[in-house]
Amino acid sequence: MATHRFSPRQFHNTLGSHPPVFTLADGDTLITETLDAHGFDREGRLVASDPNPMTGPFFIEGAEPGDTLAVTIARISMVRATGWTRAGLAANVVDPGAVSRLPRRDKTTWLIDIAASRIAPEIPPPKLRNWSIPVEPMIGCFGVAPDMGQAISTATSGPNGGNMDYRGFRPGTTALFPVSTTGALFFVGDVHGCQGDGEIAGTGIETASEVELTFRVRKNKPINWPRGETAEELFCIGNARPLDQALQHATTEMLDLLKADFGLNELEAGHLLGMAVRYDVANVFNPAYSVACRIGKSWLEGIG
Amino acid sequence: MATHRFSPRQFHNTLGSHPPVFTLADGDTLITETLDAHGFDREGRLVASDPNPMTGPFFIEGAEPGDTLAVTIARISMVRATGWTRAGLAANVVDPGAVSRLPRRDKTTWLIDIAASRIAPEIPPPKLRNWSIPVEPMIGCFGVAPDMGQAISTATSGPNGGNMDYRGFRPGTTALFPVSTTGALFFVGDVHGCQGDGEIAGTGIETASEVELTFRVRKNKPINWPRGETAEELFCIGNARPLDQALQHATTEMLDLLKADFGLNELEAGHLLGMAVRYDVANVFNPAYSVACRIGKSWLEGIG
Amino acid sequence: MATHRFSPRQFHNTLGSHPPVFTLADGDTLITETLDAHGFDREGRLVASDPNPMTGPFFIEGAEPGDTLAVTIARISMVRATGWTRAGLAANVVDPGAVSRLPRRDKTTWLIDIAASRIAPEIPPPKLRNWSIPVEPMIGCFGVAPDMGQAISTATSGPNGGNMDYRGFRPGTTALFPVSTTGALFFVGDVHGCQGDGEIAGTGIETASEVELTFRVRKNKPINWPRGETAEELFCIGNARPLDQALQHATTEMLDLLKADFGLNELEAGHLLGMAVRYDVANVFNPAYSVACRIGKSWLEGIG
Amino acid sequence: MATHRFSPRQFHNTLGSHPPVFTLADGDTLITETLDAHGFDREGRLVASDPNPMTGPFFIEGAEPGDTLAVTIARISMVRATGWTRAGLAANVVDPGAVSRLPRRDKTTWLIDIAASRIAPEIPPPKLRNWSIPVEPMIGCFGVAPDMGQAISTATSGPNGGNMDYRGFRPGTTALFPVSTTGALFFVGDVHGCQGDGEIAGTGIETASEVELTFRVRKNKPINWPRGETAEELFCIGNARPLDQALQHATTEMLDLLKADFGLNELEAGHLLGMAVRYDVANVFNPAYSVACRIGKSWLEGIG
Repeated sequence: MATHRFSPRQFHNTLGSHPPVFTLADGDTLITETLDAHGFDREGRLVASDPNPMTGPFFIEGAEPGDTLAVTIARISMVRATGWTRAGLAANVVDPGAVSRLPRRDKTTWLIDIAASRIAPEIPPPKLRNWSIPVEPMIGCFGVAPDMGQAISTATSGPNGGNMDYRGFRPGTTALFPVSTTGALFFVGDVHGCQGDGEIAGTGIETASEVELTFRVRKNKPINWPRGETAEELFCIGNARPLDQALQHATTEMLDLLKADFGLNELEAGHLLGMAVRYDVANVFNPAYSVACRIGKSWLEGIG
Repeated sequence: MATHRFSPRQFHNTLGSHPPVFTLADGDTLITETLDAHGFDREGRLVASDPNPMTGPFFIEGAEPGDTLAVTIARISMVRATGWTRAGLAANVVDPGAVSRLPRRDKTTWLIDIAASRIAPEIPPPKLRNWSIPVEPMIGCFGVAPDMGQAISTATSGPNGGNMDYRGFRPGTTALFPVSTTGALFFVGDVHGCQGDGEIAGTGIETASEVELTFRVRKNKPINWPRGETAEELFCIGNARPLDQALQHATTEMLDLLKADFGLNELEAGHLLGMAVRYDVANVFNPAYSVACRIGKSWLEGIG
Repeated sequence: MATHRFSPRQFHNTLGSHPPVFTLADGDTLITETLDAHGFDREGRLVASDPNPMTGPFFIEGAEPGDTLAVTIARISMVRATGWTRAGLAANVVDPGAVSRLPRRDKTTWLIDIAASRIAPEIPPPKLRNWSIPVEPMIGCFGVAPDMGQAISTATSGPNGGNMDYRGFRPGTTALFPVSTTGALFFVGDVHGCQGDGEIAGTGIETASEVELTFRVRKNKPINWPRGETAEELFCIGNARPLDQALQHATTEMLDLLKADFGLNELEAGHLLGMAVRYDVANVFNPAYSVACRIGKSWLEGIG
Repeated sequence: MATHRFSPRQFHNTLGSHPPVFTLADGDTLITETLDAHGFDREGRLVASDPNPMTGPFFIEGAEPGDTLAVTIARISMVRATGWTRAGLAANVVDPGAVSRLPRRDKTTWLIDIAASRIAPEIPPPKLRNWSIPVEPMIGCFGVAPDMGQAISTATSGPNGGNMDYRGFRPGTTALFPVSTTGALFFVGDVHGCQGDGEIAGTGIETASEVELTFRVRKNKPINWPRGETAEELFCIGNARPLDQALQHATTEMLDLLKADFGLNELEAGHLLGMAVRYDVANVFNPAYSVACRIGKSWLEGIG
């Protein structure tokens, strides 16, 4: 149950079975830093290449294929006074006939007022001169090594996690990943200071950060897709295109969750989900889109 | 600004340019009844055929093509002690390989305790014996006559509204529809006592209801897709398959809204939406899926 | 078995239960004219409004709901020395990031050399100065009245046919439509002088034409989607978005065809189709895309 | 320009930067063997694990990032008297409501009569007792190492090729792959004795084979997606879900081809493709679907 501080020196652009940079025991806490999506650190120095350079991998003792790695996000701290976005919306989230209305995708700097916990464009367009947004940090890309010895670009995501860009991966959430290799090999990076649903600008507030994460191994608890838990909710993630398939993956995983953890058969789960399910469009920009299938714990009262 | 009570005798299974059953002035309020999706009324009598028989159409004085019809949902009252669903989830919301796990789609009765505002299955499966859900009423299918003299099945939806099955169309919401014909020709029906996101069981709690709606004509305010407004939010709906295209329609409509109502260009709107947008998967069951693109009013503070 | 010549005076922009303009007996042949997609006739006069004004509807004696209407395309004749297209590809058939590369969608005139059966741009861009294409005529939009009293825009398509824009609907093909109303109510229009797969420019060579069609009623032979037959092939059409769903509809309809007409169960049909199926992307432009699922008659030898 | 015969001993389930097993010069020809999709060799011995174990990688001298590797398929020989399929169609190619009609996906043996070049089920279902199909061999999975040091499962495909399952990769076709690493690192396997469009049974006739391939490096000719050339056609492949996106990738790549190789701008290419394009649904089963965008050489006459 120790807390370790790790300063990264090298970074990866794939989630794969790379040599671990650090080993943690089941229950340990890690404090480390992440670069922004283009590889700039807290000082603004370019120290790695894009896309989404990852800190890690971290070897978690006791994690074996068939287990689940639980990662509690205790804290995500802003450590740099700037972040950036791309201007305008991504071409794939508007009608094809409206693409030509979109502005050029210039890199845009935002100022992060860490003390006030507010963010605003450095050079605001006219209508946004008095506008700012809250710091609502989230982890854009994290996960474990995929199966079959694959090494998958941090631009995309899969059953092992990766670039899901889901704003629900925020402080207070425990993320769950299916372990495919001894030690799980956990990676983390691409923190956003704020982001709406869907990452429809193709970016959040891309910035460097310090994260504090606690790891626990759930032995012999296989899952098929990333999941998450907060004080109020349980959720399952599906990563695929189109959104329809991401939603199918997430919903099927939720059926598995309700069966394994609550003993519900498909009839009972159908009654429950038909009335209570909530979906988030996590990202609708990356090569694989991400959908979260959520169930509020209050809807589970009286079950069993 | 009168309030009218109208008792329907005939019903339609298409939204089209049918002869109006009643005329209301701009600002008037209508109290009327809706049948359930299979055509059963508050007494449980079969008085119309499925799918989703509509009450209406109502002619709204002053509404002309190019205008917008605003319909404030003042009240949706449960008037029958039963509702029904289909058992299990719809085949299209789980992985194709999981379809064979789903139960038979038997019609299932739910008891509505109107006084207590709770709903529970009449014959609950074992794990749900002590489980109930709140009454959270919504309008499944409503809208106006489509353009070009079309008459479109109430099983589906389009720019004119229709079977959107969005739980955001609840008491307190003002829905907006683009007017394509003189008098708008408004239809309403298919109320659900409760429903989760996506209508993933293919049904909500299907029941008869009494609705109270207030109509206002917004002259020369053209819109392309249904919209809505609550105390906290503005939203735009896109109706299409797959979800990706429904989301594109809704997002493009939101760009139009932000330009017309707040003066934001595409750069400013991109900054805002990239950080603040929320999406709801309204329905992922009907021939056209529905997605709501939402913006919280609090995110609009400081703009302009 | 008579041949009738009919000169249209009025046109429709929806397929619906409109009053029939002419009645034909089972086995009769019709010779009539079609306008181009914008409503211009063989003389270049604007006589109807877009989209795709239809000649008809024609009442086919003996056709009742549950029957199939077979329409043999005996001839499609070019009758005007010009056709038109939109310049460039449609925005939805290229990567969203490539949309800005596309030229403006100007209306472009093509010259039809009817004697030589060749077509070329009137003002060819430089590289196409010596380039021409063959006349390969097809019917873009035809079908029967939909069910439930619907009236559906000729911009789109459904189980009743409509704007399928499939180049397989050419002379020599017999098209089949499911009858939903007494007399079937057949419509035809939107002939193209030539068109590639998918109608990816959003147009074929849009022109007026004279068509010769023979009608036969297949009693009590219900089908769910349009089908077709040529000397070499049988095919089934699915109309929906995305292409995946259009393909699902077409493939499911082919399973029905193989069961009803050849007695194949799903195991046998799977063996056959897995090895022999061919797909055409009929259109990937209209609100509903169209996919043809085809089986060559030579692959059916030895079956039964 | 030598011909080399290579007998594989080890196999890979990912396309990645694995150590090369053999080196060929630009212009050399390779004769080697492939296993079936489950890892069985020509003698029916299990020598590797699924999915789609690959022979290779082969290092092609002179191939560098930015080049294109051209692989001419000179010959694909059947070398085993048996192949296998899965019974029935894949669940994702029929309507969700029809999935329950499909038979169990049992492994089914087919007999390959190499001398007669015919294939038939070993235990045919009743209606197929006198039915057989021709040997029409194709390569299901081949390609080069992907970029960024990725290692990608042979179950799927991407810009580097992989499991495209396109029946157009047959003898006489030259396949083109974008080179991302020195030596290209070419892999090959998963030959099918026959297969329809879309691989809608999830398999072709899965069998071992001997292939004869000739390699040529096209220096400084970058491409973004796999391409192919036959005596009659040029084609470009897009790999993605849904089919819509695969088609967008393939069509955009064809615009690039027409610009680079024929000097056509987007206006000229639009005129040509709108009339002449053909699409094949290569596979609609794998995690990434594959679409081929084809142009017949006869349609290019007169251009330039």
